[in-house]
Amino acid sequence: MLRLKQLGIDTCHETVAFLARRCPLYRAQEFVALARIEISGGGRRIIATLNIVDDESIMAADELGLSQLAYRQLGLPNGTLVEIAQAAPPPSLEHVRAKIDGAVLSPEAYQAIARDLAAHRYSKMEIAAFLIAGARFTTAPEVLSLTRAMASVGSRLTWNGDRIVDKHCIGGIPGNRTSMIVVPIVAAHGLKMPKTSSRAITSPAGTADTMEVLARVDVGSEEMHEIVAAHNGCLVWGGHANLSPADDVLIAVERPLSIDTPEQMVASILSKKLAAGSTHLVLDLPVGPTAKLRARESFVRLRKLFEYVADEVGLNINVVGTDGSQPIGRGIGPFLEARDVMQVLERRDDAPRDLEERAILLAGHVLEFDPALRGGHGIARARELLESGAALAKMRQLMAAQGQPPESAALGNLKQDVVAPRDGVVGAIDCLRIARVARLAGAPIDKGAGVDLFKKIGDPVAQGEPLYRIFAAFEADFRFSTRFAAEGNGFSIQGIS
Amino acid sequence: MLRLKQLGIDTCHETVAFLARRCPLYRAQEFVALARIEISGGGRRIIATLNIVDDESIMAADELGLSQLAYRQLGLPNGTLVEIAQAAPPPSLEHVRAKIDGAVLSPEAYQAIARDLAAHRYSKMEIAAFLIAGARFTTAPEVLSLTRAMASVGSRLTWNGDRIVDKHCIGGIPGNRTSMIVVPIVAAHGLKMPKTSSRAITSPAGTADTMEVLARVDVGSEEMHEIVAAHNGCLVWGGHANLSPADDVLIAVERPLSIDTPEQMVASILSKKLAAGSTHLVLDLPVGPTAKLRARESFVRLRKLFEYVADEVGLNINVVGTDGSQPIGRGIGPFLEARDVMQVLERRDDAPRDLEERAILLAGHVLEFDPALRGGHGIARARELLESGAALAKMRQLMAAQGQPPESAALGNLKQDVVAPRDGVVGAIDCLRIARVARLAGAPIDKGAGVDLFKKIGDPVAQGEPLYRIFAAFEADFRFSTRFAAEGNGFSIQGIS
Repeated sequence: MLRLKQLGIDTCHETVAFLARRCPLYRAQEFVALARIEISGGGRRIIATLNIVDDESIMAADELGLSQLAYRQLGLPNGTLVEIAQAAPPPSLEHVRAKIDGAVLSPEAYQAIARDLAAHRYSKMEIAAFLIAGARFTTAPEVLSLTRAMASVGSRLTWNGDRIVDKHCIGGIPGNRTSMIVVPIVAAHGLKMPKTSSRAITSPAGTADTMEVLARVDVGSEEMHEIVAAHNGCLVWGGHANLSPADDVLIAVERPLSIDTPEQMVASILSKKLAAGSTHLVLDLPVGPTAKLRARESFVRLRKLFEYVADEVGLNINVVGTDGSQPIGRGIGPFLEARDVMQVLERRDDAPRDLEERAILLAGHVLEFDPALRGGHGIARARELLESGAALAKMRQLMAAQGQPPESAALGNLKQDVVAPRDGVVGAIDCLRIARVARLAGAPIDKGAGVDLFKKIGDPVAQGEPLYRIFAAFEADFRFSTRFAAEGNGFSIQGIS
Repeated sequence: MLRLKQLGIDTCHETVAFLARRCPLYRAQEFVALARIEISGGGRRIIATLNIVDDESIMAADELGLSQLAYRQLGLPNGTLVEIAQAAPPPSLEHVRAKIDGAVLSPEAYQAIARDLAAHRYSKMEIAAFLIAGARFTTAPEVLSLTRAMASVGSRLTWNGDRIVDKHCIGGIPGNRTSMIVVPIVAAHGLKMPKTSSRAITSPAGTADTMEVLARVDVGSEEMHEIVAAHNGCLVWGGHANLSPADDVLIAVERPLSIDTPEQMVASILSKKLAAGSTHLVLDLPVGPTAKLRARESFVRLRKLFEYVADEVGLNINVVGTDGSQPIGRGIGPFLEARDVMQVLERRDDAPRDLEERAILLAGHVLEFDPALRGGHGIARARELLESGAALAKMRQLMAAQGQPPESAALGNLKQDVVAPRDGVVGAIDCLRIARVARLAGAPIDKGAGVDLFKKIGDPVAQGEPLYRIFAAFEADFRFSTRFAAEGNGFSIQGIS
C-alpha cells in the first residue's frame, strides 16, 4: 500500500494524483495510457488523473501524492495507506458516448452525469467531451433534464413565504451592476429578495466582488436567513451555499474553451435559481454587437428556451431584452462599479443615468411580481423608492447587517489615460475588449483596478482627449492592460464629415 | 522575470507550468480561469496549462516550474529568465469552434490544426473538443485533408525504388501478430517492406514490443535504411522517425476517452503510412462481435473511406476483411506472441494454424503487388516461401541485422490457470476482455506477462479444465489480472444438450 501525501499543488478543478516513476508497488507506465486511476483506502474512493514524479524531493517512491482538490475529495489524512487501480470510467460516461453518437438522453442519464460531475469523477477531457457533444445538438427537454439534475445534486435554500424574487443577467456587459440597486429598491418595497451572487470568473467584476467593496459578502447560510428575515434582502456571495456544484465543474472547462451555448446557459442559470429557492425571476438578456446575444433572432430563441424550462420547473420568469451595445455606467471593476452604484442610490448629480434607468427598468419588472401592485405601475414604484431615499436607506441596512468588508478598497495607484486618436464621435464600444482591459489591469482581484469610462456612444471627442482611464495596483497587470489597450482601445471613432 | 525550473513531473502529453501562489511578479489567480499561459524567453515561446504551487519546497516563489514535456518544448536551460502572459488560444482553435458549429473545414484549416497539435499548443480539453466535434460529423474530403495535414507536419521516410509495400491491421484482435511472418515472407520474395511498428498503447502487445523479444527494434533512420538495402525488410519501432506526431497527440486523448471513430482511424493510419514512404498497402480489417468492426455494414463503410483517401493521396491499397471473432494464435503478450511467430516460421508441429493461415493470406495479398507474379498466385507463393524455410532464413537475417534485444525476456514467474466453470463447448471469446486480462497482467511492459490460450471457439471443455493461463512478473499486476479474470473470464461455454 502507498502512503498518502498531500502535495502543495493546486491543479485547478481537476483531481490529480502523483505516482513515483520508481514506485516499488505499482508501475506508473501501466496507468499512463488511460490517464485515470482509482484511489481507495479507509472506506473511501476517488478517481484522479495521473501525473508521474521523477524527483524524490517532491515525494518518496512509496508515497502517493494528491493535488489539493484530490486530497479534499478523498478526505483522508496524510500517511493513510491507500491502494490504486486502473480507474473504470465514471458509469455515466456511457451516456456521454451515446450523446456523441447522436442520442437524446433521458432525465435519469442527466441525473447520473450531474452526480458524477459534482463528485469530480470526470476528467477535464471528459467534461469537454460532454460539453461539445451537447453543443451540437441538445433538445429543449434535455435542457430541462440537465437543469433539474444540476439543481438536485447540490444544496437547496428554503425560505419562508411563497414569493422569493430574484433578478439575473446573463452577463457580458461591463459595468452592468444593477442588482446592487434593484435589491435595495425591491426589499424596500417589501418583497423578499435574498440575492446570492457569484464572483467574476473571466469578467472584471461580479456582483459579489463589487458588493465586497461596501460590505462583507462571505456570509453563511444561517446568517443570510437572519438578514433576509430582518431586511427582506441581502447581497451575498453564493459560494457557501453549494448551489449547483456540477455547474461550477462545467464552468471550469467552458471558460477556457469559450463554450457558451444557449443550452448550457439556461441549465446553468436556472439550476442555480432553483437551488437558491427563487420562485419569481426577472432575467436580463442584453443584445448588442459585442454582447453574448448579437441578434434579435438569437434573443428570441434563448428567451423561449428560458421560458420553456422555467415553466416546467415551476419558476415564474419574465425575460427582458435590453440594449447591450455598450458598457453600462462608467466604472468597470469592483471599486469603480461600487462608486457608480452609490452615486445612483445617493441621488448624486454625476450619477450615471444609464445605470439608473436600467436598474429602475429591471426593479420595475421585479415589483410587478407583487400582486398588490397595480399592473403597469412597477417602474413608477421603483423610481419612487429610489428618489425618496428608501432604497439608499435599505442599502445602508443591508451593509450594516452584512458587516464591514474584510479589507478596505481604494483605487489603484498606477493609472494611464487612453486617448482618442482623432476627432470624431464615438460610434461603438467593444464590450469584450473593454472588459479585457479592465480584467488585465487586475480586476476583480484588485478591487481598485479597472477602467473608468469618460465617453460613451454618441459623445463627440477631440484628438488626444481621454476616452477612459486604466487603474491598476500591480506592475505586471498595468503592463498587460496598457499594452493590450495600445493594440486596440475598443473604441470606434467616427469622423465628422 | 521568473527563473525557469524543470520539475521532475511528467504530466503525460500535456505541457504544464507551475506558478507559485505567492509569486511576487504575477498573481496566479489571474490566470486560473483560462487555465493556459504563454511562456516566453530567449526568443522562444510555448503555451502551457497552469498549476499553482503552494509549497515552496517544490519551487521558489520567483521561479516558474515546467513539466518534463514543457521543459523539452521550450528548450531553454534551468535558470533562464522568462516572462508569462495570459495565453491567446492557438489560432487554429477558431476552426475547431467552426467545426463545433457544424462547418466543413478547408484543407488549410486542417493544416493549421495539425501544426498546432504537433507543437503541443492544444490543451487536452481542446484536443477533446476537436475530436468530439469531428466525431459527430466529418466528410470524406475532410478526412483526406486531415490525413494529408497530419502526414505533412512530421518527418517523412524516403526509399529507393517505386514499390514500397506495407501491411497494417486496425487492431483489436489479441495475438494477431502476422506482420512478423508477413515481412520475412515478402522480403524473401524480393519486395521491399520496411516495416515500422508502434509499441502497444492500450493493448497487451504491439509488433514493436513483440519483435523486441527477438531483436533490437530501437533502430535509427539511417541504420534502418542500411538494413532494408541489405535485406529488403526490417521490423523496427517507428518512434524514432517522428512520423505523424500530431497523431500521437490525438491518441493521448482518444484512448482515455475511448474515441475510435472511422474518420480518426483512417487519418491516423494513412498519415503514418504516407509519412513512412509506403506506396502499396494491404490493410487487415477484422470483423467480429468483440472486434473494432462488429458488422459487415460498418466494414464496408470503413473500407470505402480507406479506399477513397488512399486513392486521393496516391497510395495503392488493398483492404482485406478477416474473421475477427476470437484471438489469433495462442499467446497474448510479447513473449508468448513471439513464441507463436517462431513456431510458425520454424514449421513446428504445434504451431498455431490460425496464425499461419492468416499470415499466408495477408502475405499473399502483399505479394500480388509484384507485377512479375502471375495474378492469383500470391497465396501459393507465400506458402511456398514459408514452407521452404526461406521466410525463416529471412527472419534470422533481420534479427541478426537488427541485433540483440536490450534485455532477454522470459515468461513471468507468477501464473494461474483460469478454468471452465462447466462442461460444454467454447461458443465465444471476448477479445476485449482477454486483452485486458493480459494487459493487467503486465503486458507489454513485462515481456513475459500475458495470457496463453488453451482453448478456442468450437473446442469442447470439461468443468475445471484450464481455458488459459495468466503469466505475470509483478505482484500488483498479478492481483489486478486474476481479480479481473475472476469477475469474468471472457469465455462463453455453451452447454451440450
